[in-house]
Amino acid sequence: MNVVQSKIVCFQNKGTDGTVYMKMIKTVQEMQTLATHLRTDGRKIGLVPTMGYLHEGHLSLIRIARRKADVVVISVFVNPTQFGPDEDFAKYPRDIERDKRLAIQEGVDIFFYPSDEEMYSKRHLTFVTVDDITGVLCGASRPLHFKGVTTVCTKLFHVVKPHFAVFGQKDYQQSVVIKRMVKDLNFDMEIVIAPIIREADGLAMSSRNAYLSAEERKDALSLQTALKMAESRIKQGETKTATLIREMKDYISSKIYTKIDYIKIVHPDTLHDLDVIEDRAVAALAVFVGKTRLIDNVILQV
Amino acid sequence: MNVVQSKIVCFQNKGTDGTVYMKMIKTVQEMQTLATHLRTDGRKIGLVPTMGYLHEGHLSLIRIARRKADVVVISVFVNPTQFGPDEDFAKYPRDIERDKRLAIQEGVDIFFYPSDEEMYSKRHLTFVTVDDITGVLCGASRPLHFKGVTTVCTKLFHVVKPHFAVFGQKDYQQSVVIKRMVKDLNFDMEIVIAPIIREADGLAMSSRNAYLSAEERKDALSLQTALKMAESRIKQGETKTATLIREMKDYISSKIYTKIDYIKIVHPDTLHDLDVIEDRAVAALAVFVGKTRLIDNVILQV
Repeated sequence: MNVVQSKIVCFQNKGTDGTVYMKMIKTVQEMQTLATHLRTDGRKIGLVPTMGYLHEGHLSLIRIARRKADVVVISVFVNPTQFGPDEDFAKYPRDIERDKRLAIQEGVDIFFYPSDEEMYSKRHLTFVTVDDITGVLCGASRPLHFKGVTTVCTKLFHVVKPHFAVFGQKDYQQSVVIKRMVKDLNFDMEIVIAPIIREADGLAMSSRNAYLSAEERKDALSLQTALKMAESRIKQGETKTATLIREMKDYISSKIYTKIDYIKIVHPDTLHDLDVIEDRAVAALAVFVGKTRLIDNVILQV
Repeated sequence: MNVVQSKIVCFQNKGTDGTVYMKMIKTVQEMQTLATHLRTDGRKIGLVPTMGYLHEGHLSLIRIARRKADVVVISVFVNPTQFGPDEDFAKYPRDIERDKRLAIQEGVDIFFYPSDEEMYSKRHLTFVTVDDITGVLCGASRPLHFKGVTTVCTKLFHVVKPHFAVFGQKDYQQSVVIKRMVKDLNFDMEIVIAPIIREADGLAMSSRNAYLSAEERKDALSLQTALKMAESRIKQGETKTATLIREMKDYISSKIYTKIDYIKIVHPDTLHDLDVIEDRAVAALAVFVGKTRLIDNVILQV
C-alpha cells in the first residue's frame, strides 16, 4: 500500500534536444502534487518567494538557491494580505513576462504564479501571527504587514514543500520573523538569508525604487550613507545608540525629499532597542522619499 | 545530489522473531527525521492527535487510522496553550503507561509524547488563529482555546508529516476549525472526522468523565437525552430552533448538578446560529456537571 506507486521521473527540465525550459505553474494543486513527487524522488527543493518585478537582489537569491538545490522554485505573488488599506497594493509594479525571462536566464526550474483567488478563498479565516517582534520597526507603522507575510509564507511553504527558502537581508525584520515562525511552528526547513544587493552608488535594490523621480533617487542615497556613517563612527569607538541615531537622523533629514519613519539600533534577534552596542546589533531604518517608503539596514559588530 | 541517499527500510515494527513493537519517540527531531524517511519510502502516515488518558473514543480513532495508513502515529501531549488560566491543565488526567499499553493493543506504530519544553521554547511567539468560527460555542466561554488547538495541531502536522489526521466529532467545533485551517493554509493532508463513541448508557466518552461523582454521572446523561429529544422532535416536524433549544434547556436545567454553558443549533460549516432548520444543522451544547464541563452534539437533518 504505497502512496507513490512507482518512482517515475516526474520532473525534467531538459527537452530531448537538450533545451532547458522552465515549468510554469498557476495552481496550488499542480504545484503541491509536483512537490510531493519531487520529494519522494529525493530531490532537494529550494524556494525563492517574491512579489515579482525582479531585480538583481532577487536574482542573487535565485543564484544562492541554484547552488544548493536540485530544483529551484520561484514564486511570484503580490500578496494582498501584507498591504495595509492605504498602501501600494494596486500600484505595486508588476511585469510577469520580464520576470519569466529573467527566471529562465537564472536557471529557475519552476515558476509558480498563482492568482489572488487561487491563494485566498472567499472564506479565508486563518492567519499566522508572530507576537512581539512584529510590533516594532516596520511593524509599528505597518501593523498588519507581518501577519500577511507569515500567513502567505506558511501557505507557500505548504504548497512548494521546500527544503529551504531564501530571503534577503534587505527586509531584515522579515527575515527574523520568518526564522522565528519556522522554529516555533516546527517547519522542517532551512531559512537562508542573503546579503543586500545594491546599485553601483549604494542604494539597496528594491522593486519600489521604480517609483522614484530623478531628484528623489539622489536623496534616497542618504539611507545607505547614514548607515555607513554609523558603521564608521562605531569603528571609531562610539557605542551609544542615541548619539549614532541622532547623527543618522540629522543627515537624512537634511535632504529635501526625505521623511523619516524610523531609525533604530536593535538586538539582532529580539529586535529590542539597545542603549549601548556591546556586541552584535542591527541599525535599521525606513524613510519616505517623496511618497515612496524605502528601507535599509546594516549589521553592526563592535 | 539526492537528499535521501538510499532507500533504506528505516522503520520496521516487527522484530526478527515476528514480535510487534511500538516505537516510543520524545523529541521533535527524531519524529521529524523518521517521518521524512517514511514519506520518502512511500509510506502513508496517519496521525491521531490526543491529550492522552485514552478511552474507547480515542481507540476508535486509532482503528480508523489503522485501516487507512501504513504507519499509525499517536501523539500524547496535554497542550498547555489550549487551557485558560482558570481551567484544568494541571489536574487534567494523565496515565502514560496505560496509554502505551492501549496503543500497543491497537497496533499503533509510533507513540509520540514530547514534553512541554520540547514543544514550546521559552521564546515561543508564533500562533495560528482562525477568525469568526472560533468566537462562538466553546470559543465564547474559552476565548484562547482554539488558538492553542490550531497552533499545536500545526506543530504536530509539521513534526509528524501525516497524510491524514483523525479527529472525533465529539469536539465538533474543533473539527470544523481544523478543517478550515487545513484548507486555508494549504496543508497537503486529509482531516478525517470519526463518529462520537458513547458509554452503554449514552454518555459521550471523554477523559473528563473521570472527574464526575456517581450522582453527577447520572445527571450528565441529560446532555445526550436532550439532544435525542431534539432529534425526535425534528422528526415530528419541529424546525424552529428557539423551540428546540428551550425544550433542551428546560430538560437539562431540571437536573440538580447541571449548569448550562450554551445550547445552540448552528450551521454545520459556518457555525452561525440558525432560526429554522432547513437542511443540515448541528445541535451542540456545553454543560457544567458539578465542576466538570462536558460537551456533546448531534448532526441534524430535516
